[in-house]
Amino acid sequence: MSRVLVTGASGFIGRNCLQPLTAAGHEVHAVARQPLASVPGVTWHSADLLAEAGRASVIEASQSTHLLHLAWYAEPGKYWTSALNFHWLSASLDLLHRFGEAGGRRAVLAGSCAEYADVERPCDELRTPLAPASEYGHCKKALDELAQLWSVRVGVSVATGRMFHLYGPCEYPSRLVPSVVRALLAGQEARCSAGTQRRDFLSVADAADAFVALLNSDVGGPVNIASGEPVTVAEVVREIARQIGCPELLALGARPMANEPAAIVADVGRLRYEVGWTPQRTLVEGLTETIEWWRRNTRRDDQFQQCMTP
Amino acid sequence: MSRVLVTGASGFIGRNCLQPLTAAGHEVHAVARQPLASVPGVTWHSADLLAEAGRASVIEASQSTHLLHLAWYAEPGKYWTSALNFHWLSASLDLLHRFGEAGGRRAVLAGSCAEYADVERPCDELRTPLAPASEYGHCKKALDELAQLWSVRVGVSVATGRMFHLYGPCEYPSRLVPSVVRALLAGQEARCSAGTQRRDFLSVADAADAFVALLNSDVGGPVNIASGEPVTVAEVVREIARQIGCPELLALGARPMANEPAAIVADVGRLRYEVGWTPQRTLVEGLTETIEWWRRNTRRDDQFQQCMTP
Repeated sequence: MSRVLVTGASGFIGRNCLQPLTAAGHEVHAVARQPLASVPGVTWHSADLLAEAGRASVIEASQSTHLLHLAWYAEPGKYWTSALNFHWLSASLDLLHRFGEAGGRRAVLAGSCAEYADVERPCDELRTPLAPASEYGHCKKALDELAQLWSVRVGVSVATGRMFHLYGPCEYPSRLVPSVVRALLAGQEARCSAGTQRRDFLSVADAADAFVALLNSDVGGPVNIASGEPVTVAEVVREIARQIGCPELLALGARPMANEPAAIVADVGRLRYEVGWTPQRTLVEGLTETIEWWRRNTRRDDQFQQCMTP
Repeated sequence: MSRVLVTGASGFIGRNCLQPLTAAGHEVHAVARQPLASVPGVTWHSADLLAEAGRASVIEASQSTHLLHLAWYAEPGKYWTSALNFHWLSASLDLLHRFGEAGGRRAVLAGSCAEYADVERPCDELRTPLAPASEYGHCKKALDELAQLWSVRVGVSVATGRMFHLYGPCEYPSRLVPSVVRALLAGQEARCSAGTQRRDFLSVADAADAFVALLNSDVGGPVNIASGEPVTVAEVVREIARQIGCPELLALGARPMANEPAAIVADVGRLRYEVGWTPQRTLVEGLTETIEWWRRNTRRDDQFQQCMTP
């Protein structure tokens, strides 16, 4: 019987991994500072992984053979440059060390497209140079590279899922998709940039499913977690406005373009052919689910309900 | 008053830093798992820095403004590839984080020439590419790079002293200089390779003095800690045999050359012109001190006395 320890289990991605993990036959141990309400088949541990005692206790309590390490600092507007990235890197290396010492066999870590250099072509895990532009990217890159070296040294299988742009239920409301969805659902204008940036959008439920497939495989090293179907930001927000039925409220070009890469797109060859995984939803379907979730979870007073109904 | 916390303070380099630090007017807090006998002006703390409690306690107890972080895993024959390198990297990042949180202002870390690519020319801190060939080098490189990023983010001044080849009293007896000195002092043959490798040798007392000068400066980033005067290994061991007076016992070429770089030599421009430091001893003088120390510290039964008389 495989026992999986999931960190960041109450987060945007983590909460979506729990059902696919139990469905795949794993005994699931979920750790979070604030555990979610009971999920069938999941044992919750409340711990702060930035503290040694927290790391030691969950490794001891779970006796896990598999580790899906998603926990990290992710507060919008702050996580790119925060010194907490270094703290999470340090804690993550220590968690890996303890996992290995306790007999762990397979670990999957959360990486990021922010590890790559700014290139126009699809990012390829083995060929595209890494050149992060942020502390977040630097620390994710360091974890990625160090974990691979550690893997070879200690004989624990390690892969990193490099996430691109995710969207879906429970996303921070200030981020692109929720901010547009919420404005339009409230009948307000959604002021956007021209939206010419090309990005790879994947629904968070599909991303979680891809992480579980990666964990269940024996593929090592970095693997892009993405749809492989780049779209422009304008296409995404137009589809949202179309589905909500208020294209006239979409103000494309009302804001200046931020100073960000023109394209952040993924080569998904490893995910598709080595892990053997493809998305379950189209972008249209994923956005429909997301809009429906926000309809149910936006109160009249417009306060964000922190994912009370996962 | 500046308060310096020295980690690895009972080690090969650390023990040599204590007197120069007190002489420079610092209040010195020294941490080691096994503190040395009392050293004038030094407050000792016994702690295991691989444990969070150890890191927290020494940061709390020392209230240090300056950090000289020398502690690392260094067991000959094992430290190049040990998984403990990852553990020390994680602990070092956490120590830096705690030092910064507690108001620390200036940190100097122990780096290594093992961070550099294998190049024939003198290694230059800002131009020579980094491409470690070992876990030790990878983890030192990661600490170096991450500490610089962290430094910019949190406003703590950080430099790394990249050590080349050190020798002197208290070195592990299995290493080159002690093994040749001890064999020759015992009247035994010293079997060496051809010794054509070019290296930068610096006495450990000078290296410690350079670390203190670097700490007292405001120079940031990597700084080579080296003599800048490359010699071949053959020249070093010939000088030892000359001083001991038994050149006939030196068997150069009796062993095959190890698979190692032909040259590992340092550009010392930053150390000399930015830090303003030059060695106090020539190689001949440093070897004389070292041979004298081994004369006093080698018992008839030839057991290594673990530095009982620093």
